[in-house]
Formats: sequence, C-alpha cells, structure tokens
Amino acid sequence: MPHRFKGERTLMRIFIGEGDKHQGKPLYEALLHLFRERGIAGATVVRAIAGFGSSSKVHTEKVLRLSVDLPIIVEVVETAEAIESVLPDLDEMIGGGLITLERAQVVMYRPANVRQSQAEMHRIDGLTADDS
Amino acid sequence: MPHRFKGERTLMRIFIGEGDKHQGKPLYEALLHLFRERGIAGATVVRAIAGFGSSSKVHTEKVLRLSVDLPIIVEVVETAEAIESVLPDLDEMIGGGLITLERAQVVMYRPANVRQSQAEMHRIDGLTADDS
Amino acid sequence: MPHRFKGERTLMRIFIGEGDKHQGKPLYEALLHLFRERGIAGATVVRAIAGFGSSSKVHTEKVLRLSVDLPIIVEVVETAEAIESVLPDLDEMIGGGLITLERAQVVMYRPANVRQSQAEMHRIDGLTADDS
Repeated sequence: MPHRFKGERTLMRIFIGEGDKHQGKPLYEALLHLFRERGIAGATVVRAIAGFGSSSKVHTEKVLRLSVDLPIIVEVVETAEAIESVLPDLDEMIGGGLITLERAQVVMYRPANVRQSQAEMHRIDGLTADDS
Repeated sequence: MPHRFKGERTLMRIFIGEGDKHQGKPLYEALLHLFRERGIAGATVVRAIAGFGSSSKVHTEKVLRLSVDLPIIVEVVETAEAIESVLPDLDEMIGGGLITLERAQVVMYRPANVRQSQAEMHRIDGLTADDS
Repeated sequence: MPHRFKGERTLMRIFIGEGDKHQGKPLYEALLHLFRERGIAGATVVRAIAGFGSSSKVHTEKVLRLSVDLPIIVEVVETAEAIESVLPDLDEMIGGGLITLERAQVVMYRPANVRQSQAEMHRIDGLTADDS
C-alpha cells in the first residue's frame, strides 16, 4: 500500500529525560508501546548529547558519561485527531517534560517489505507487534 | 555567499532505516550524494535510538545492538522549488519511509571558512566535493 | 510553575559543527550557557552522524571516526520575543552555521521535580545553575 499517507499531518515532539521511568521501564519505551497500541503510524526516538529544560540543569554526555538522564526526543507524525487522542495518556505518563505540535505535510509513506522480513528476525517479546 | 539564503524556506525530513541501501551503499549516504549533485545547500543525518514506522516493528538500540536498521532522519532546508525538484529521485531511491515538509524561516546562513580549511584535511574520495 | 508555558511558541534550530569553538570551549556548550543566562526555558543538543552544509563537505561518523566536526543541532522552544533577544548574540558567537525558526504549539510544559533532585547529584561546576 504505497503512498497511503499523503496530506496534512501533525508532528508531535516529546522532550523527556532518558532516565524517566513508567512502571519500572524507560518512559520512551512505554511511549512506543502506547503508540503501537493506539495504532499510531510511527514514532522515532532520538537521544540528545546535552541540554537543559524542565529540571533547569545542564547535562552533557561528555562530563556525565554515566548519567542516564540525557534529553530524549520522541517524534510522531499523525493526524491531528490521532495526536489528540493520546494526549491524556501522555499527561498521565510524563512526570516532567515538554510537548510541542507542528504542522507537517506528508509527501510519502510506504511500507518496507524487505526491511519487514529482516525485522522479523529481530522480534523482541513485548516490544514488537504485527501489522494489522 | 553569505545571506544568500535568508527568508522563507522548506524543511524536508526523510525518515528511513539505517540498513536501507541504494545500489549497494547506505541510502542516507546516497541521499547526501544526490543532494550535493543537485546543489542543495545542506543536509544533516541523525540516527535514532529506537522507533517504529513503515515496517511496524519496534527497534531499540539497547536490545538490538547489532541491528543496522535503526531509524535515520535526513534533514534538508531549502527553497520549495529545490525540494520539489528532488522528490521524484527520492521516490525512486526510497523503498520504505516517510517524508515530511514543514515551513521554516532562515534567519542566518553563513559558510564556515575556518571549518572549511579544517575539513579539507579530512577529504574523502567520493564523499566530498568542492564548493562552486 | 506547571503549565506556565502553553500556547504558540517558536522553535529555533541552530546547525553548527561539533568542532566549533567559542572562547576555547565547544560552541554548543557556550550556547547552552548563553541560553541559561538569558532565562531561556530550555535547550536540547543533538549530534548528527553525517551531513554537509556551510562548509560544503560531507562528513560521516563512519569514515571520519576521529573527526570532531560532525553536525550539531541545538534546539530551543521559546516565545518569539525571547528568541529574538538572543539572535544578536548568536550572530557574534556563530562563525558558520544555519539558524531556522518554526512555529510550534506547546501543549505540555511541566518541570520534573523528581529528576531535579536526581540531577542535583550530578551538579557540575560551570555547567549548572540554579533555577530563579
């Protein structure tokens, strides 16, 4: 189903800490689970090397190499309705952080069949789920 | 060419997999080559630590340390015309992925002469090219 | 001060090089200091794995493993006025780079009290400062 996803969408970006937890596991993994359960089209998690924000402290990878609290950015591109539907969950799950919404035009989305079969080999219990 | 670039521009973000290939080499490197050939002003490649998307699998750096299929984001800031001119190539080169376009205002664009001479020292065949 | 921050804001993204310096220290650290001094709400620093731009050279983490000139992206979400107030400083501090502004809607801003006390333990001289 190539090109199933064209049009105006919302880019949600969630800024949290790498050390943030939700029910004992990393918050960003819990967010990925939530998004999968809700049928969100995709999510991408980027780790920063430095930053400050809600905690008003400056963290850097260089100086705090053992710290697990570097900033994490979780990004989702979806319809405005899909984004709004998960905001109450995010409100409960995120202890401290920042969420921004931007408008984005999606020009291409196409499942990668080759990568899918490759990914099959790396299936992780509890972290993967089948496409519907 | 300082300040040739100020004003309203388009931010293109391409979400692919680190393991994606184009003619035997990493797709993100092929995209960098394409953008250079077309005179695109710049591009930046960021590797995510986790994510799911077109293949609908959750990948994490932690569990799949050997995986080469972590999400990759390639970003380009250019005129709308320049972005549109490369979209047909992207459509051919990208097997599975997502492309978003956003509006961005450029308030500073400045070549780095000092860094350029430093970069000279790291010249790589096939991966570098001179400024025009 | 939960929710002090909702509404329309500006996302500033600064593209520089990891090797860029300001008064002998990494430019991105100098930018974090500047933003802290000016009361900017937060900043996040991401390191890219490849890219080209103002210097028109392609850098890749793979080939240039020892290079310290990979692209760096510094992001700030703030009011338009706060962003504009720091632009003259950025103009002086940044030798070569790109700055873009985008509109972003903030839907959640929440200090992390738990993380704050944790961060206390990692205080670094010269890199941290108290909340006002």
